Amino acid sequence: MDHMVKTHLWDKQRTRRQDKLDLAKQKGFEKKVEHARVVELLETVIACGDRVCLEGNNQKQADFLSKSLSQCHPEVINDLHIVQSVLALPSHIDVFEKGIASKVDFSFAGPQSLRLAQLVQQQKITIGSIHTYLELYGRYFIDLTPNVCLITAHAADQEGNLYTGANTEDTPAIIEATAFKSGIVIVQVNEIVDKLPRVDVPADWVDFYIKSPKPNYIEPLFTRDPAQITEVQILMAMMVIKGIYAPYQIKRLNHGIGFDTAAIELLLPTYAASLGLKGQICTNWALNPHPTLIPAIESGFVDSVHSFGSEVGMEDYIKERPDIFFTGSDGSMRSNRAFSQTAGLYACDLFIGSTLQIDLQGNSSTATVDRISGFGGAPNMGSDPHGRRHASYAYTKAGREAVDGKLIKGRKLVVQTVETYREHMHPVFVDELDAWQLQDKMHSELPPIMIYGEDVTHIVTEEGIANLLLCRTPEEREQAIRGVAGYTPVGMKRDIAKVQALRQRGIIQRPEDLGIDPTQVSRDLLAAKSVKDLVKWSGGLYNPPSRFRNW
Amino acid sequence: MDHMVKTHLWDKQRTRRQDKLDLAKQKGFEKKVEHARVVELLETVIACGDRVCLEGNNQKQADFLSKSLSQCHPEVINDLHIVQSVLALPSHIDVFEKGIASKVDFSFAGPQSLRLAQLVQQQKITIGSIHTYLELYGRYFIDLTPNVCLITAHAADQEGNLYTGANTEDTPAIIEATAFKSGIVIVQVNEIVDKLPRVDVPADWVDFYIKSPKPNYIEPLFTRDPAQITEVQILMAMMVIKGIYAPYQIKRLNHGIGFDTAAIELLLPTYAASLGLKGQICTNWALNPHPTLIPAIESGFVDSVHSFGSEVGMEDYIKERPDIFFTGSDGSMRSNRAFSQTAGLYACDLFIGSTLQIDLQGNSSTATVDRISGFGGAPNMGSDPHGRRHASYAYTKAGREAVDGKLIKGRKLVVQTVETYREHMHPVFVDELDAWQLQDKMHSELPPIMIYGEDVTHIVTEEGIANLLLCRTPEEREQAIRGVAGYTPVGMKRDIAKVQALRQRGIIQRPEDLGIDPTQVSRDLLAAKSVKDLVKWSGGLYNPPSRFRNW
Repeated sequence: MDHMVKTHLWDKQRTRRQDKLDLAKQKGFEKKVEHARVVELLETVIACGDRVCLEGNNQKQADFLSKSLSQCHPEVINDLHIVQSVLALPSHIDVFEKGIASKVDFSFAGPQSLRLAQLVQQQKITIGSIHTYLELYGRYFIDLTPNVCLITAHAADQEGNLYTGANTEDTPAIIEATAFKSGIVIVQVNEIVDKLPRVDVPADWVDFYIKSPKPNYIEPLFTRDPAQITEVQILMAMMVIKGIYAPYQIKRLNHGIGFDTAAIELLLPTYAASLGLKGQICTNWALNPHPTLIPAIESGFVDSVHSFGSEVGMEDYIKERPDIFFTGSDGSMRSNRAFSQTAGLYACDLFIGSTLQIDLQGNSSTATVDRISGFGGAPNMGSDPHGRRHASYAYTKAGREAVDGKLIKGRKLVVQTVETYREHMHPVFVDELDAWQLQDKMHSELPPIMIYGEDVTHIVTEEGIANLLLCRTPEEREQAIRGVAGYTPVGMKRDIAKVQALRQRGIIQRPEDLGIDPTQVSRDLLAAKSVKDLVKWSGGLYNPPSRFRNW
Repeated sequence: MDHMVKTHLWDKQRTRRQDKLDLAKQKGFEKKVEHARVVELLETVIACGDRVCLEGNNQKQADFLSKSLSQCHPEVINDLHIVQSVLALPSHIDVFEKGIASKVDFSFAGPQSLRLAQLVQQQKITIGSIHTYLELYGRYFIDLTPNVCLITAHAADQEGNLYTGANTEDTPAIIEATAFKSGIVIVQVNEIVDKLPRVDVPADWVDFYIKSPKPNYIEPLFTRDPAQITEVQILMAMMVIKGIYAPYQIKRLNHGIGFDTAAIELLLPTYAASLGLKGQICTNWALNPHPTLIPAIESGFVDSVHSFGSEVGMEDYIKERPDIFFTGSDGSMRSNRAFSQTAGLYACDLFIGSTLQIDLQGNSSTATVDRISGFGGAPNMGSDPHGRRHASYAYTKAGREAVDGKLIKGRKLVVQTVETYREHMHPVFVDELDAWQLQDKMHSELPPIMIYGEDVTHIVTEEGIANLLLCRTPEEREQAIRGVAGYTPVGMKRDIAKVQALRQRGIIQRPEDLGIDPTQVSRDLLAAKSVKDLVKWSGGLYNPPSRFRNW
């Protein structure tokens, strides 16, 4: 007992929080704050060196609070450590350029990836790590717990109860980590009402709320215009349906963003139905409400969809389809990125997405040398969960394909669907990923690989499907990848005899092996050929953003 | 557009829910229900074939609602599909014996594992699957969404807002999945008050609440009496600290339940401190508030602990240590199994736990032939997360040990600490796990393996540490395991020369290789030798349940 320390203070964090709140009170701040005073509030309750979680989501943005933070005086607030899912807005980067923040831990920086890379070059920012979403949320409870969070919700009532609206996204994960570790929770809302449609976050968990001068920005990230889907994408989608979804009986799944997977969604009520697959595949989804899923839903293909966020324009449609979507008693959607990512990891049998580069081990990456973009949720969905213990037809079939002996575990299906060349004639298949160069540039411990080759089970290109589960050696795997890599340099270097042998063993399947005639592929197979068609399918309930309307 | 179906109803679930609620209203039920009428309520709002999520946690139990469900008439309610984390109480099994429920999907059935196995034999129950916790929660949002959930919380106010108290555990995950998919949420509470200490679940999410005749049952599952820790366990704990935690600089971690890991916790302020490791290891935890962690906390070893649930008797101590634990503004703890499991998976560098059997591939299992016990959270924590993308010293060091070439990913450390023989002289190391026999008996697709050999990085026994990361072939791995398997038949069959070679390469480390003299090991190294010592360390704040008091 000699080691006991008696003089330790155990409530430093709470005292620090209370001191900040007392100071705010002295300055006349109440729980409801006028937007004109927000910079002053932030300068009062954020201390230098604080860990600040700014709600930068995939879709909705705490843009007013972000802008306000960037307007703080760097001599008052500096050296902040920002922990944030998505760096999406210019103001997300401004705080670093202005010297208000110095370090960031994040998940995705799509639109700001170029500026981010420049800041790293200029040594104006330290990147802690790049995470997947669920991984970052996990760290909120371990070693990246925020001192202050800046959140956005749709509405608050007078007490500060919050209604997050359809786009819940990261809000519950961030608020819980902050509110229960002596942090300060500040929320911008679009409106303040007397009675909320429903309470999503109790007022107890909220310290300050502000009616933002304008509604929070939100990006219609998951809308793909069917008019832009090409016949090559349709061919690949047919191969996926007939060559993967049908034999593995894929019922529970997640789709990435993009035209490749939008094509699959639009072929469900037509091509897949003609194969007798209705009710057999694609019934339960972890997916944002993709407009291109409307025809499949309307055709009775889909039983349920749980979502990470929502999608602009889908509000009324979702409200009228409560059997499909998770909605509250008020009718509006309840999404939750933490739970949907958990479902995507552990409850789905398949993830399919696209990528920019694939190497001969099957590793894939969306990193290019001048951009630090991050991963978002793909690595989480696109990985074989070794903690999974429940079986399913797909999971055990894939597991059996991967081993010769007794089956001890199944396998999640992780499919990469790519055309062999992407825009500007960049080959997707490469000897070495740009990720390795980027790793050097960033001085990071690990290369920014999106999905590891060992987790990928199938690669689909316009040339065919390579089933990597069935490969027994690294050499077979390499030839299987070369064998679908088309006229890329990597594809040209294939060993023709070996590829032919792999085809005979069913490891490589060409469209004709699946009974698909590429010359018969047509856009007529798409259940909807335009955004207008999607609106029609929805019975007028889908209300696309103006940028997607050409009528 | 020919495929469009116009006659589909899209709110069957909502209508079904509303019909149930209307019927309850006709029978005079309001939101607050008298406990005497609960069986009648359940018979009104639960329909045959419904999927019912009964809150059976690791610790707290919705025992009154479970008992009430088991008292329903099987001619009124039958064929229920129970989805539930833990089958812990007799009433959890009674519903199957009585023909009220027929199918179960669950995670863990410790105390009821024998009866469960008997029911399977008698064909009175169908087991869907056995899951890890996080996996089951994921399925709540995909294909196992509850129609009705039966929940427990500490208190409700008159409107039905809930205060879950320290043991939040599964509640948020269950309620969210049910309330937002047209399900019915029924809650038993210990008390109804005018003003809650804090609101954890908004009243909007709750349909009925009942003051239970007595407080909900709660199990002090994580209390280990230091008096029962043996010198062998202390020796193994020293090896773990000096041979694993120190070289890998393990800061973020999770411990399993048991005396092996309790010994480690109690050596932190003594042995680990003497090695200069304070502040260097074991600073951030995903862990329930183990009483045996008190000395390490009091000694300033620990920065933070996020918990799955809580622990009986730790309430006042936690309240006075808000810098360490996640607590609400009322001072009481906020736990959350979903988030803590997420943190355990993605934010921790190490998991260490014990098991009943290990085979020569390193696969481990707690399954024995007559019991169907399940996994709980161990497979999730004890697996290498392929979706992780952030580096740490431990993660990259382990990754480097596992490969000879360029490092593409790190490795989570998954340690199994076992004595070579367990009680009744059963050898832990075996040629074949009982799990394979149990698989046959259960007719399940996969054997009930707790942790896969490919995920285990180290095995620690009284004989030494085997570092499986450094093994390059299955044969080396097998000899490394034999080499720490002591006098078990598996251990006796080691190739002495090969084991010696592995030791020279540092793959096997004996206590003396680590500078630990087994003859010097003593219980005096434990920071606390009894529960009473723990109370002293806590300054009287820890209030152990009476069964742990012998004074």
